Amino acid sequence: MQISPESIGYMAAVLTTSSFLPQAIMTIKTKDTESLSLGMYSAFTSGVLLWLIYGIYIEDKAIVCANSITLVLSASILSVKIFNTIFKNE
Amino acid sequence: MQISPESIGYMAAVLTTSSFLPQAIMTIKTKDTESLSLGMYSAFTSGVLLWLIYGIYIEDKAIVCANSITLVLSASILSVKIFNTIFKNE
Repeated sequence: MQISPESIGYMAAVLTTSSFLPQAIMTIKTKDTESLSLGMYSAFTSGVLLWLIYGIYIEDKAIVCANSITLVLSASILSVKIFNTIFKNE
Repeated sequence: MQISPESIGYMAAVLTTSSFLPQAIMTIKTKDTESLSLGMYSAFTSGVLLWLIYGIYIEDKAIVCANSITLVLSASILSVKIFNTIFKNE
């Protein structure tokens, strides 16, 4: 059996994105971001946005898919964190 | 000023990899992995390995660079976690 490079990309996408899912669900549900780092999530979210732009540039579907979903999750966590930082002085 | 797609890829690599660095340094220093999820780190490390293989396939230097470094960091964390799970019944 031959595995196409494209399917390796999609398997990679499913694994890295799904590994991020439990944190996102927990944060959105509980709104608790005290143990999360603002710096880390700012850097990560910016990085994922740039990977998405990069994927669009080089027209790579696996990169675009993976980073679109991860960006939504990461940006949601970051938004809750920023809200808590401003309004709850976290 | 025109920014090349390649430099966007490298900026993305620096951001996502460096956002992962504090966790890696902390885990390697303290060997404390109690609040880390074995499932999450197994999925993430496998995913990063597949991204690396994918990057080699499509001959994309930014993807290969980013995922080589992240793989070393993530595999180190996972190794400590597996060691603690087996020998300390975490």
